[in-house]
Amino acid sequence: MTEKFSKIALRMKSNVIRELLKVTSKPGMISFGGGVPDPDTFPRFEMAEISKEILENEYKLTLQYGSTEGDPILREEYISLLKRESGIEGIDVDNLLVTVGSQSALDLISKILLDEDSIYFVSKPVYLGAASAFSLRSDRHVYMSLREDGADIDEVEQNLQEIENRGELNKVKFIYTISNFHNPAGVTMSLEKRKRLVEIANKYDVLIVEDDPYGDLRYEGKPIDPIFKIGGQERVLLLKTFSKILSPGLRLGIVVGNKTIVKKMVTAKQATDLCTPSLTQRIAARYLQRYDLLSQIEPTIALYREKKDLMLAELERSFGSMEGFHWTKPEGGLFIWFTLPEGFDTAEMLERGKAANILFVPGEAFSLDNTCNNSMRLSFCLPPREDIIEGVRRLKKIVVEYGKEKNLL
Amino acid sequence: MTEKFSKIALRMKSNVIRELLKVTSKPGMISFGGGVPDPDTFPRFEMAEISKEILENEYKLTLQYGSTEGDPILREEYISLLKRESGIEGIDVDNLLVTVGSQSALDLISKILLDEDSIYFVSKPVYLGAASAFSLRSDRHVYMSLREDGADIDEVEQNLQEIENRGELNKVKFIYTISNFHNPAGVTMSLEKRKRLVEIANKYDVLIVEDDPYGDLRYEGKPIDPIFKIGGQERVLLLKTFSKILSPGLRLGIVVGNKTIVKKMVTAKQATDLCTPSLTQRIAARYLQRYDLLSQIEPTIALYREKKDLMLAELERSFGSMEGFHWTKPEGGLFIWFTLPEGFDTAEMLERGKAANILFVPGEAFSLDNTCNNSMRLSFCLPPREDIIEGVRRLKKIVVEYGKEKNLL
Repeated sequence: MTEKFSKIALRMKSNVIRELLKVTSKPGMISFGGGVPDPDTFPRFEMAEISKEILENEYKLTLQYGSTEGDPILREEYISLLKRESGIEGIDVDNLLVTVGSQSALDLISKILLDEDSIYFVSKPVYLGAASAFSLRSDRHVYMSLREDGADIDEVEQNLQEIENRGELNKVKFIYTISNFHNPAGVTMSLEKRKRLVEIANKYDVLIVEDDPYGDLRYEGKPIDPIFKIGGQERVLLLKTFSKILSPGLRLGIVVGNKTIVKKMVTAKQATDLCTPSLTQRIAARYLQRYDLLSQIEPTIALYREKKDLMLAELERSFGSMEGFHWTKPEGGLFIWFTLPEGFDTAEMLERGKAANILFVPGEAFSLDNTCNNSMRLSFCLPPREDIIEGVRRLKKIVVEYGKEKNLL
Repeated sequence: MTEKFSKIALRMKSNVIRELLKVTSKPGMISFGGGVPDPDTFPRFEMAEISKEILENEYKLTLQYGSTEGDPILREEYISLLKRESGIEGIDVDNLLVTVGSQSALDLISKILLDEDSIYFVSKPVYLGAASAFSLRSDRHVYMSLREDGADIDEVEQNLQEIENRGELNKVKFIYTISNFHNPAGVTMSLEKRKRLVEIANKYDVLIVEDDPYGDLRYEGKPIDPIFKIGGQERVLLLKTFSKILSPGLRLGIVVGNKTIVKKMVTAKQATDLCTPSLTQRIAARYLQRYDLLSQIEPTIALYREKKDLMLAELERSFGSMEGFHWTKPEGGLFIWFTLPEGFDTAEMLERGKAANILFVPGEAFSLDNTCNNSMRLSFCLPPREDIIEGVRRLKKIVVEYGKEKNLL
């Protein structure tokens, strides 16, 4: 049958992180792998109560097909959440679309914007899920190097200028960026850079896709205005999700954008999955109506902050004095990007990690050109305190063994 | 922004049925439109109980990301359901994939099999959702005419032979068919034709995609072996769904096929929506473990049978003596295909229907070449008895008025 596969099917690569999930459950395994939140932080009793209630009393909605656009109550509630949280105003329900997680939003964006010869900008390292959704339609990506304060905007401008010079500016469809606590890099784009990015996008008439799954999980420092708020709905498409704050199991993503784009995404969604499940949408809607999500996640934030600080401290203790080892210090989110000296191959090291019961995601998984080999992504949110300590200890052991064997240390 | 849209985005058409849903809620409206089951038939109290329980006790699974392949318990249970129901054997969990409704399965099939120049076979009239998913990747469809006993297999063979003669057989990816109680036509493929279709597919080495959302809703006659059972997993990909028997609001589709194809669909799904919601999958899994789905749907079958017989009787009463009016007599499912004499334009008539508070789906919506204009799809499952009677009365009034005005009667 394989000779029947489409060209894109033949070039599809299985998602390393999804594959990692399968070995995570091995007894004794400590995983810094998946970007998996801690399910103990989710309001399960409240959701259980709501779920029972809406299945019994609102079954004509919760058990039925819903509109492709999404539950109207959920969209209304989300508008008010965006206002309270980020001061975003001037949008109504037609600016919002509810998707099956943000991954589905990325798939829809890919469908409505990309042709085979379309160009798009992504960071390096890049979020795997975005890269795979986009590359299904076009592999013409342009990299943006990541710094501690976000993408290198000078480089973005230079690249756009070059593309314009060669007469291909009309092929540039969007700049994709994770504004807060980048996955996998952990870095956040500064306010100044956000403003410059919007200016450049205006100048070259390019859409910005701002993916912000982690913005609510800020552990220190002051929140920065979303690019969407700076650039407005005509310039920026904002992707949000409930996966890190209410539950990934619900699979709920929210797209906020100008009505023409949202409407086209709705049409694409009709041919993709008809509609997001009615039940999970109404659970989230009623939850937002009854509880204050932002104060509910305060204990989660405290918990993750502590784990993040612990992992940073353990990394410092284990690798602080070793030359060429460095890591990002995120102010929120789920990830630390750990870079080793040149020559270390984290993909190869993962096999040793599996044997030693410690998982991480090799940096290569976040590149489209088999680079980032000497980095790895570490997630601190799921493992308990003692596993963070023990996990970094195991990591150190592997690093030292591998480094000595390869004459890198 | 519209100049940024992809070529496929520019040719996307909004789904007429989804648009119809929006006017369905108008007071006084009777809808024969959507293929929407009656939510009163679903076991809401059982599902409410299960939902509460699994959110409280199995929250580490139900609120977390799941595997892309789907809930293992749900897949195990579904294997045993397929065996009990259709005698399908010789499959294990790796032959199954859980999708966000069957629509998502169609999207994944489109992604993994179709290139821009790929050829696929669909019926005429065609199920809208399939046509729109496939046409996102290729518009090279070949029609199969529908008869009372299913697609015209001679025509299929003749077309395959012609394609082979011109050296394009390797471009033919699949034959898509709804085996039972076709949407929109209501017809069922006979056993003889199923066997011949498999023979021909074997001869020309073409995959059959058997979509069977309605097979469990048989009101009379004897069940016919699925094409999947006749042709086997190397030849046939089977799509099933919980939407008509447990609830469309859960958005659960099941793909059954050979492991190579299922695995490739899993990879495509990773880039499409990561995984189907864990909560809705576990609700269905526990339901299948605790209750006998097939006996639970018996009252539903009785209810729908009565409504179907009533609509057929009302059609006979209103149109039986009118020349050139005919309709299919389905043995199950949700739809009757009602054909009027040449010259009637059901799309134009729909506007009158909206004004007269009666909705149906114009035949044109089920064609890829703006034909089927003198047919319409009628669904009998959702409206109460009195609305079926009154609805057909309103339909008659519109038909007579339109027919006289256009000198067709």
